[in-house]
Amino acid sequence: MSSSPSKTLRKLEVVSPVPADIDIANSVEPSHISQIAEDLNLKPAHYDLYGKYKAKVLLSVVDEQQGSSDGYYVVVGGITPTPLGEGKSTTTVGLCQALGAFLDKKVVTCLRQPSQGPTFGIKGGAAGGGYSQVIPMDEFNLHMTGDIHAITAANNLLAAAIDTRIFHESSQSDKALFNRLCPPNKEGKRKFSDIMFRRLKKLGITKTTPEDLTPEEAKRFARLDIDPESITWRRVMDVNDRFLRKISIGQGPDEKGMVRETGFDISVASEIMAVLALTTSLSDMRERLGKMVVGNSRAGEPVTADDLGAGGALTVLMKDAINPTLMQTLEGTPVLVHAGPFANIAHGNSSVVADKIALKLVGPGGFVVTEAGFGADIGTEKFMNIKCRYSGLTPQCAIIVATIRALKMHGGGPDVVAGKPLDRAYTTENVTLVEAGCINLARHVANTKAYGVNVVVAVNMFATDTEAELKAVREAALAAGAFDAVVCTHHAHGGKGAVDLGLAVQRACENVNQPLKFLYPLDIGIKDKIEAIAKSYGASGVEYSELAEKQIEMYTKQGFSGLPICMAKTQYSFSHTAASKGAPSGFVLPIRDVRASIGAGFIYPLVGTMSTMPGLPTRPCFYDIDLDTATGKVIGLS
Amino acid sequence: MSSSPSKTLRKLEVVSPVPADIDIANSVEPSHISQIAEDLNLKPAHYDLYGKYKAKVLLSVVDEQQGSSDGYYVVVGGITPTPLGEGKSTTTVGLCQALGAFLDKKVVTCLRQPSQGPTFGIKGGAAGGGYSQVIPMDEFNLHMTGDIHAITAANNLLAAAIDTRIFHESSQSDKALFNRLCPPNKEGKRKFSDIMFRRLKKLGITKTTPEDLTPEEAKRFARLDIDPESITWRRVMDVNDRFLRKISIGQGPDEKGMVRETGFDISVASEIMAVLALTTSLSDMRERLGKMVVGNSRAGEPVTADDLGAGGALTVLMKDAINPTLMQTLEGTPVLVHAGPFANIAHGNSSVVADKIALKLVGPGGFVVTEAGFGADIGTEKFMNIKCRYSGLTPQCAIIVATIRALKMHGGGPDVVAGKPLDRAYTTENVTLVEAGCINLARHVANTKAYGVNVVVAVNMFATDTEAELKAVREAALAAGAFDAVVCTHHAHGGKGAVDLGLAVQRACENVNQPLKFLYPLDIGIKDKIEAIAKSYGASGVEYSELAEKQIEMYTKQGFSGLPICMAKTQYSFSHTAASKGAPSGFVLPIRDVRASIGAGFIYPLVGTMSTMPGLPTRPCFYDIDLDTATGKVIGLS
Repeated sequence: MSSSPSKTLRKLEVVSPVPADIDIANSVEPSHISQIAEDLNLKPAHYDLYGKYKAKVLLSVVDEQQGSSDGYYVVVGGITPTPLGEGKSTTTVGLCQALGAFLDKKVVTCLRQPSQGPTFGIKGGAAGGGYSQVIPMDEFNLHMTGDIHAITAANNLLAAAIDTRIFHESSQSDKALFNRLCPPNKEGKRKFSDIMFRRLKKLGITKTTPEDLTPEEAKRFARLDIDPESITWRRVMDVNDRFLRKISIGQGPDEKGMVRETGFDISVASEIMAVLALTTSLSDMRERLGKMVVGNSRAGEPVTADDLGAGGALTVLMKDAINPTLMQTLEGTPVLVHAGPFANIAHGNSSVVADKIALKLVGPGGFVVTEAGFGADIGTEKFMNIKCRYSGLTPQCAIIVATIRALKMHGGGPDVVAGKPLDRAYTTENVTLVEAGCINLARHVANTKAYGVNVVVAVNMFATDTEAELKAVREAALAAGAFDAVVCTHHAHGGKGAVDLGLAVQRACENVNQPLKFLYPLDIGIKDKIEAIAKSYGASGVEYSELAEKQIEMYTKQGFSGLPICMAKTQYSFSHTAASKGAPSGFVLPIRDVRASIGAGFIYPLVGTMSTMPGLPTRPCFYDIDLDTATGKVIGLS
Repeated sequence: MSSSPSKTLRKLEVVSPVPADIDIANSVEPSHISQIAEDLNLKPAHYDLYGKYKAKVLLSVVDEQQGSSDGYYVVVGGITPTPLGEGKSTTTVGLCQALGAFLDKKVVTCLRQPSQGPTFGIKGGAAGGGYSQVIPMDEFNLHMTGDIHAITAANNLLAAAIDTRIFHESSQSDKALFNRLCPPNKEGKRKFSDIMFRRLKKLGITKTTPEDLTPEEAKRFARLDIDPESITWRRVMDVNDRFLRKISIGQGPDEKGMVRETGFDISVASEIMAVLALTTSLSDMRERLGKMVVGNSRAGEPVTADDLGAGGALTVLMKDAINPTLMQTLEGTPVLVHAGPFANIAHGNSSVVADKIALKLVGPGGFVVTEAGFGADIGTEKFMNIKCRYSGLTPQCAIIVATIRALKMHGGGPDVVAGKPLDRAYTTENVTLVEAGCINLARHVANTKAYGVNVVVAVNMFATDTEAELKAVREAALAAGAFDAVVCTHHAHGGKGAVDLGLAVQRACENVNQPLKFLYPLDIGIKDKIEAIAKSYGASGVEYSELAEKQIEMYTKQGFSGLPICMAKTQYSFSHTAASKGAPSGFVLPIRDVRASIGAGFIYPLVGTMSTMPGLPTRPCFYDIDLDTATGKVIGLS
């Protein structure tokens, strides 16, 4: 704990009913971010300012604090949600406001950077809500410090390199191609550039001078011979642009008829985002980016970014993005925003480096609270088996956020549909529905507890929830093995509404006495790992499509079977069927396809079809967004 | 002039032969940008830091200095160049190093932000060269403060809005469409959002409540009825990706067969970049972005960004981009980097707001030196007739950069081809070729002088140039009416090599005595304006394609004929034929097509085919680019 009192903590004056998020956000004058940094004992040399309210904390902070101990590490997951979301981000922020502004703890909130697509589409921003928010809201939701833009640039440079390479290989002899790749320098001598030695090494060629290669070696080196059908690398854009989901490229007259079908994903679905989230250092990022596989050669060998000569340039584009962005909550506690890999096809967790820096900054007795996207069956599971496996970090406590609304849905309540009014069942007392729905919570609690952490259930309370309903949840949670279960009102009251949760989390962290246990070891087969995860969903077995079988065989043959598994499954059910609520069991989980993010370091089986590019509705959020050009303030952001 | 001595100016220790650009750039420790700002009398409230070496200067500086006087305004153009470039940027930077570090003048260099595409492609970076550079070179060339990324995001949000709107209009009745656009709020009342009143006003509908519109009015309001064939808005990406030049979108099963041919341009070719370069304030930018035309309705009415509800969101995405970025030269003089509209299809000049801020910051007796892209026939012409027309600023001096190499080419020397060794004619004395080539320089001088400015010819000297050759240029320049002609060696010597140029520019600025004269008035027809410009090229007339005639008729009918003209012509000749060197005359200039950037505020006739998306070579620059992960330094950038 810091010895000097914080200059930035501020108490909120809350109003009821809770005003619009943007109005609350605009009602608070944020502290200059250098003051937030000072509170964390960061010196100016430890960060770069990006305007007045954002700073990039330099990775070197971790190296400097190599010897010092970490704080407590808390992950926030949720029960299987309704389409409206159950407030995981808001709870994460509210808990930290409680720990920092009310319980006098050193605390850092670690959040994902949101995609701009949904901000202008249907969903709006992702800075929390009510009196538990990250501010300034517009800077959090738009551009931030440019990390997603860097990902877009890097992803698309690699995509351009792929198609252009195929194009140039198609029209050049082996010799011409080799000579162009190794042009003579001013002294007339041909040289390999540094990155080319990576490919030479991969090919087992130890010669160091281009002239020394045999024609056969020169051909193997120069001709990647990418099979266009095998290309898995797509272009990305941080915009909800459904018309780019499937496109044909190369239709210009100069591209000589080399038309190919491909498509765009939203930028946060790029493998480079997953790399950013899982990397531990600049040199680790350089290696991961270089070994990203974009497709196969016609002979079935994986072709990497380094084979294309691009791994270094990608690293250069990402060199500032590796530093997390420091921001603040409404109550002046620090937040590190960093990475935001798509939970649909990646692991949906914020970055390892932000968590590592934060754990050093809060130190022993302090708290780092990080959020895992989607329900705990996906988010927390990937947090444990992928993120913690790569980071080597050990959480003490896992929170599971629940709402009465979602529990009623799991207990058999009517469908909850975004944009439609809620059924009366959700706004009037119905303890029976709640009790029945706790079967979903109970499985999440049990699954999470199995990792060796203490599980605290946070009931994110709505105005219409009744005491009897809340009591039912608390009892069910404890019966399922939760360390504690606490009702919280941070949306309406800010940190003050999450003080009990903060105290419960503190006790949970102080009383953990088991080591972290993974759900599966890495050294078993891909199918064995998939089946271990499927079992945690309640599945009785797994069924593989012909394509999935083929892919598993290929990745195993290519030597990638030792990677962890990142399931691409709906978050709306434990099973593959979104409509299947509660705690389904006995179903057979179908694996439609299996893909891989080799650089990021995981295999991702597709359970059903995952959208990787959202669309815009008839009346998108952007209709309300404008700039007050007199004040420079953003209006209409939600 | 500042009374306190500068803390940031530093003298260079030059080495011969001149080392690689990146080695020179890395040999100098830049000052913290707050020191550069302090030298300009900027207070911390006037700028936002972006790391240690970049700061965004806030537009409010201009408002605060409303009453104070401007410094001298100098524009740098060039003769018709070889494909190797004749060093306009380098001369711009070198001149400023001379004025600031050797002649004790307040000076600001205004430069364009380079596109990342060429940095990774063939060309390399654009921070100047030799001992006349902007540093840090990697921050200048990559990401900078995110302005181009903001443009990409805004451009593509609008593109997504277009296709999605057509999609939703295709499947909804007038009533459903109207109701979705004006959904009921929590109280059940339908309301227009603020931006919708812009469209209502355009349609002449003064009603303020959705319920009051007649079905016919509701239909006119809700149905943009965009003609897909008329869409001129393309997507953009800051990457050299030739396979995106022509694509088909909407091939996914959910897009119901609404396939459309379109393509990507490089981001700097976006109209939003041209808007950024020409805007004068936040409110002006809001209006320009809103009135950008994306295509026509089937009835032939222009459809704007505001009709699509997107003008406000685009402004929000661009709100930080409007603030220019402060950087520094090798010798510690200040640089404002801002905007970089494609010279191929836009006006190729840096921003109005950067120049305005700079002119106030240097004050009377100080100098602002700004570069105009391409040869002076295009760059300087557009600087005068488009940029100065919108800014209201008046230059005193125009520099024309010439090289012996380019003059020899114009005098009949052999072809100069990038990547091929130069012919001996260019590296040994040949006064005859130089003298013959001065016909090109003479026309640029005469054309530029006609604007009412004093013209100074800067001969960017190479080691192989001889005294007799240089003398020939000086004589020809003076004979053509130049105020002065000066040999400079800033590439080899930094500011010291451009001291004579600095003195000449100072005299030129102090001795101007004519008002600015435009080449054409705005209130004549589109064709009359095109013909005035064509005459300045030496053309005897203009020939319009059928398409060009049709477009001119349409724009005139739509009320856009009062805009200035932005010719899209090769920079490699005064004429439309790149191979036609010297000072061709008597040719008929063919206008293939005529397009418009209504928001930016110009009509652009296409003289021939202009590429708006470069490609990558077999061995792109990125092969050499990597990060030294131990030091965090970028290596291999050229």
